Amino acid sequence: MKAKEGMGLTRSVAHWDEKYQELQHRVEEVVNLGRAEGVLSWDQQTYMPPGGAQARAESAAALARIVHERITDPHTGELLNDLSTTLPELHPDSVEAAFLRVVKREYDRLVKLPARWVEENARVSSLAQVVWVKAKQESDFSSFAPYLERLFALAREAADYLGYEERPYDALLAQYEPGVRASQLERWFAELKPVLTRLVQEIASKQPGGLPATADDEPFGPAAEFPDAQQWELGQRVLRAMGFDFQRGRQDRSIHPFTTSFSPGDVRITTWIVPRNFLSALYSTVHEGGHALYEQGIPPELSRIGLGQPSLGVHESQSRLWENIVGRSREFWQYWLPQAQELFPGQLSGFTVESMYHLVNQVRPSFIRTEADEVTYNLHIFVRFELELALLERRLEVAELPEAWNRKMEQYLGICPPDAARGVLQDVHWSDGLIGYFPTYALGNILSAQFYEQALAEVPSIPAEIARGHLLPLKEWLNQRIHVHGGKYESQVLVQKVTGQPLVTQPYLQYIQAKYSELYGL
Amino acid sequence: MKAKEGMGLTRSVAHWDEKYQELQHRVEEVVNLGRAEGVLSWDQQTYMPPGGAQARAESAAALARIVHERITDPHTGELLNDLSTTLPELHPDSVEAAFLRVVKREYDRLVKLPARWVEENARVSSLAQVVWVKAKQESDFSSFAPYLERLFALAREAADYLGYEERPYDALLAQYEPGVRASQLERWFAELKPVLTRLVQEIASKQPGGLPATADDEPFGPAAEFPDAQQWELGQRVLRAMGFDFQRGRQDRSIHPFTTSFSPGDVRITTWIVPRNFLSALYSTVHEGGHALYEQGIPPELSRIGLGQPSLGVHESQSRLWENIVGRSREFWQYWLPQAQELFPGQLSGFTVESMYHLVNQVRPSFIRTEADEVTYNLHIFVRFELELALLERRLEVAELPEAWNRKMEQYLGICPPDAARGVLQDVHWSDGLIGYFPTYALGNILSAQFYEQALAEVPSIPAEIARGHLLPLKEWLNQRIHVHGGKYESQVLVQKVTGQPLVTQPYLQYIQAKYSELYGL
Repeated sequence: MKAKEGMGLTRSVAHWDEKYQELQHRVEEVVNLGRAEGVLSWDQQTYMPPGGAQARAESAAALARIVHERITDPHTGELLNDLSTTLPELHPDSVEAAFLRVVKREYDRLVKLPARWVEENARVSSLAQVVWVKAKQESDFSSFAPYLERLFALAREAADYLGYEERPYDALLAQYEPGVRASQLERWFAELKPVLTRLVQEIASKQPGGLPATADDEPFGPAAEFPDAQQWELGQRVLRAMGFDFQRGRQDRSIHPFTTSFSPGDVRITTWIVPRNFLSALYSTVHEGGHALYEQGIPPELSRIGLGQPSLGVHESQSRLWENIVGRSREFWQYWLPQAQELFPGQLSGFTVESMYHLVNQVRPSFIRTEADEVTYNLHIFVRFELELALLERRLEVAELPEAWNRKMEQYLGICPPDAARGVLQDVHWSDGLIGYFPTYALGNILSAQFYEQALAEVPSIPAEIARGHLLPLKEWLNQRIHVHGGKYESQVLVQKVTGQPLVTQPYLQYIQAKYSELYGL
Repeated sequence: MKAKEGMGLTRSVAHWDEKYQELQHRVEEVVNLGRAEGVLSWDQQTYMPPGGAQARAESAAALARIVHERITDPHTGELLNDLSTTLPELHPDSVEAAFLRVVKREYDRLVKLPARWVEENARVSSLAQVVWVKAKQESDFSSFAPYLERLFALAREAADYLGYEERPYDALLAQYEPGVRASQLERWFAELKPVLTRLVQEIASKQPGGLPATADDEPFGPAAEFPDAQQWELGQRVLRAMGFDFQRGRQDRSIHPFTTSFSPGDVRITTWIVPRNFLSALYSTVHEGGHALYEQGIPPELSRIGLGQPSLGVHESQSRLWENIVGRSREFWQYWLPQAQELFPGQLSGFTVESMYHLVNQVRPSFIRTEADEVTYNLHIFVRFELELALLERRLEVAELPEAWNRKMEQYLGICPPDAARGVLQDVHWSDGLIGYFPTYALGNILSAQFYEQALAEVPSIPAEIARGHLLPLKEWLNQRIHVHGGKYESQVLVQKVTGQPLVTQPYLQYIQAKYSELYGL
């Protein structure tokens, strides 16, 4: 009997292993096809001539259909079911456990959305984007409103299909930030809001004549000119210093800077060069470079089986850490101002580390989120988060949205957009059906400070190294403590692993208050 | 009864239409996925960093498997069968007839090759390429021989699976040049061989001290330097003059110049710049430009349903026509020498149209096919064609190949390669399993002259226009008479349509004899 039992167990383990391998092969195929989709999209945004658009859309759609078909194949569900019912004791940190968690999460999400919904959503958001572009150009909200109405209706349907315990928003948020709920976001954001709004007011009161109403596109004056080749060179130097591996990635140009990864061995970033202001390309390079270090740092064996994608908030924590906490620090400019002055001797001759530090950290409420400084940035997110929550829960109607937007802008930032283009129509996200996405930006800010606090606790010399141009000690720490986990964990689990604490806002609040109190002598 | 018959016919036509639409949708999907494969390959050869290679190979393989799986789906065979048995009267020139012809040809070819053979062939040729690279570097045929043995054995198996009426070679050739048989090639080549070998001998006898043994890599001397930016500019000017549409295509750099098309709206060519000789990039640009005009000239509605691919010989006829008949003509240099001198004033100061015309048409037997001039080029092809025919038919053993190669080189070109690297190992094709491919290059030469003769008969002003830098009249003629058919016809049918004659060698022989007799005063 015992022998038989033993043999039975062996057979059962062998059986489990076999099914696990089968599932892994299926996921690997989907990953490989997803990487091909990534190449198509990268090419479209960098080198594709205009005439290629139509055929590219059809190729991308054909590939997307196959990926969806393969992921939602009923046999995948059977394998997942078999593997979970005959589950051996797996340590929750094991690759196997993480693999099954993540695949089940994605499979469940995708099979719950009926094909009819997927098609309708693709159709409406494709149309809505075209309408949005024109509506934004003409600052005409009314032409976009019916599409937004329909997109929020589709989002409500999606939430019902996907299911949720507390609020419909949670089902949408889970696509971008698994494990976080709207109620939790509200608590975190409630901790930030009074501090940030008070900070904006205090800074305004310190400025002669109050804060200027819009961000300054030409801080070096209308006559300054930063040649393309030198701007590119500065970006390449910073990327090399950050440890971006050009054998496993490259930088190109595109209208909107972005990062994409076809594997940890091939990570592409882009930038956009503004002739009158070298800071634009520099900070987009450092930002995308932060994303890219994450992608290059993910173990290939995790990426290969679909465990290469951390949550959007965690991803954004890396780009914001490099862009703001590092890139807008005094230490950064101690090393990089002389470098920049070597490339732009005339344009930057009058600058000191101190004056550059003040320039890159100017606080001024602005209408456009993507141009916002560190202090006001999260306030832009709160506007969007609160409005999309109210729209989804039908506490607000689409027709009332522009008015509600402007009220919130006045409340949080003290300014009122002069038109819809600089107000409710500014972002592409909603037109693309991305509802529940914005909060991950604020989460990225919060996480960046909590991770950096931990990095300093473990490697106190990091700021001194940054001042000497040595960015690798921080990169190595991020590699070893964060990137190494790939997409194995949800953000709150990851934070606990890295810092030994739950996700909290206190490091971020402390960072922002200390930095700006000193800068503005509050 | 009559009414009923009518209804029955209507039902049957509707039924046929429905099946036709279904087949077309299937083919469109395969075309869309094939285009995605093209983007992956283009990126790999232009911008991919080294670290991306492994993941890219896996993505490409996943996509290739799906494309193969979709094409060979048994339901495709059923549809083809249903459509051919209930075939309505289709004009052979109709898109529908061409579509069914081409899809049936491709389907039959792919289903006849068992999966086991496909896998084994992919495995062996993948290994063989790696071995070939090293063998060529070390000029060591013996290390490559076992792989070549295996590849020819696989080719023989393929021929048996695919089937043939006359000789096994026909089955392989049909993959690249449908409708042409080895016996037909032998007849055409037999017409060329004595003329070309005699021409080489006569030219040699006119040269003081005979012909130099190798091509000259540095015709402008070892100190000449043609800056990268100006070489690029010259290529772009020529492409614009040829009518290459940069809204529907682009040029990049790669180690081996090539053309690829993701649709007629997105055609990519590449070049490779040699600092000491601007003719290298110029002629590769004109050559690939010729391929590209073809691709941009194919009607999108044909390309979309898989009728966008003419035979390799026809494709090569366009690149060779532009490179040689146009690009190596006096008229071409009448306009382009002043252009080149504007970009390279010092380097080209001593040149006249006449001296440049002589320089670009120097005849000198060389070991390397890709460096061969117009007169000797086809002789290189005959060497390869005759040897692969003999190997396939077991009249020659792989072990005897280097010796046989050298004998034929002496016989046709009067020179004997000093080593295997400059002899039997020089080309990549066999190592990649491409057996039966080489003749399409010679066919391209023959076709280029026959097409050009017809163009001159219809538009006699073409040479005068070329002399004034106007390349569009020729391009328009090619668009309207050749490109417009896409891949609807086999080469011999196409030639008949375009010229009213069967495919013949006489225009090519007349062109080459007249041109070189005049050049060398024979």
